[in-house]
Amino acid sequence: MNLLNPSFAEDVTRSFAQQPIMNLIGASLSLVEPGVVEITLPYRADLAQQHGYLHAGVVTTIADSACGYAAFTLMPADSNVLSVEFKVNLLRPAQGVEFVARAEVIKAGRTLTVVRADVFGIDANAEKELVATMQGTMICLYK
Amino acid sequence: MNLLNPSFAEDVTRSFAQQPIMNLIGASLSLVEPGVVEITLPYRADLAQQHGYLHAGVVTTIADSACGYAAFTLMPADSNVLSVEFKVNLLRPAQGVEFVARAEVIKAGRTLTVVRADVFGIDANAEKELVATMQGTMICLYK
Amino acid sequence: MNLLNPSFAEDVTRSFAQQPIMNLIGASLSLVEPGVVEITLPYRADLAQQHGYLHAGVVTTIADSACGYAAFTLMPADSNVLSVEFKVNLLRPAQGVEFVARAEVIKAGRTLTVVRADVFGIDANAEKELVATMQGTMICLYK
Amino acid sequence: MNLLNPSFAEDVTRSFAQQPIMNLIGASLSLVEPGVVEITLPYRADLAQQHGYLHAGVVTTIADSACGYAAFTLMPADSNVLSVEFKVNLLRPAQGVEFVARAEVIKAGRTLTVVRADVFGIDANAEKELVATMQGTMICLYK
Repeated sequence: MNLLNPSFAEDVTRSFAQQPIMNLIGASLSLVEPGVVEITLPYRADLAQQHGYLHAGVVTTIADSACGYAAFTLMPADSNVLSVEFKVNLLRPAQGVEFVARAEVIKAGRTLTVVRADVFGIDANAEKELVATMQGTMICLYK
Repeated sequence: MNLLNPSFAEDVTRSFAQQPIMNLIGASLSLVEPGVVEITLPYRADLAQQHGYLHAGVVTTIADSACGYAAFTLMPADSNVLSVEFKVNLLRPAQGVEFVARAEVIKAGRTLTVVRADVFGIDANAEKELVATMQGTMICLYK
Repeated sequence: MNLLNPSFAEDVTRSFAQQPIMNLIGASLSLVEPGVVEITLPYRADLAQQHGYLHAGVVTTIADSACGYAAFTLMPADSNVLSVEFKVNLLRPAQGVEFVARAEVIKAGRTLTVVRADVFGIDANAEKELVATMQGTMICLYK
Repeated sequence: MNLLNPSFAEDVTRSFAQQPIMNLIGASLSLVEPGVVEITLPYRADLAQQHGYLHAGVVTTIADSACGYAAFTLMPADSNVLSVEFKVNLLRPAQGVEFVARAEVIKAGRTLTVVRADVFGIDANAEKELVATMQGTMICLYK
């Protein structure tokens, strides 16, 4: 993959810190590499739906930000990234003490970048289980 | 549409109150009719992404709950609803003083129900603009 | 909706005639209006899957072309349209003597246009039933 | 993955032979393993869209059948498979002398199975390029 922005890691970290929703839900950036980003979210009862599982919207929130930033790592400096669309399949009830959304770029383009994210639930024994998977499109906006 | 649960409105209201995430983000149930549910969310800066717009994950959170409950209104009493999958197209930056997700059932089935939700941003002059649209599948689980 | 190409109907008709797949399956253009296109397909046994219903891929073929051309009606003259992505929910077995895919633009943009298509099966009594619905994104390529 | 039908390969092969659309477009089954199916399609000019690329609907046709049969390999004998929904991202113009759709089950369930398919275009030098990717849901119907 072509690296257009040597400062991609700093730029992703700075932008992530400017997403107040990440602070509200308690998510943090746990990996930033060219074309790959991971976001970690400890479980909290106030993020749940009616059965106590992580709400699908919160699963989507970390998956979408991971996808956006994975795409952003491969975009030119001085660009912005926005989500165009995404599709999420919810594979199992989202349970765990912690969740990790791992996004990887499938195809980086000048305008559009297609990204996939897997969201894992991690239990108290550090066992990982895939709870959801996202396939989405991100757009590069030149400033 | 066939109404299998005469207490659908009470059941939706009770279940919604049991979704802690709705309380965290400040969302409320604003309409419950057979096959149709609306959820309203006032804008708050701590729900935003890096440009100050409502985060796509939060847009999805209210759209998904609206879809789930719209499907649930047509399910039998003593059933549960879970999201199977959804796809969201983000049409415009999600700006507004308030957001409304309006979900309508397209096809109700015994096991699977397909639902669509439109999410509108509402500005200070009460002008509505479509900011996102979801198409998803909900599953009925019999207790 | 803003009309950028006064010759949109001729341009859609000409482009449709250049899609050999439409000829192979026997599909024809039945409506072209700004932001709206319909494609009609008579049932043929050689278009079916293993239970005799129209194959989901054929349902998608007419829905996708309808979406592409609905978007194309609103694009500038001398542009091309390509599909970026689409999502299809298959609501009922695709049965009928004829099928109609009706696409309508939800949001036309300079680069990306979001379109929805409903595919109806029509029986021998001219009763219509919704068999599938598509939500997709089309891109405008400037020549 | 749990193998519920020891005759899965024969059952897939028989069902595939009963999909007339596969014969019409010239597609053949090239791999059948537990949870994995490949379908191969030589390029033909009559399968193209207006620029000569394989039509997105034809790409979808082989991807959808590959997904359905990949799911079917893991279903009990005497069941049927139907597509519930799928989403396709079109990554590059679908060009090649031949196309292969490779589907792999992500999560097999009693009722719903989630599958992913990659579609590759293969050029005259046998170079493969990913042209599209599908993420979809299949349902098991018990006879």
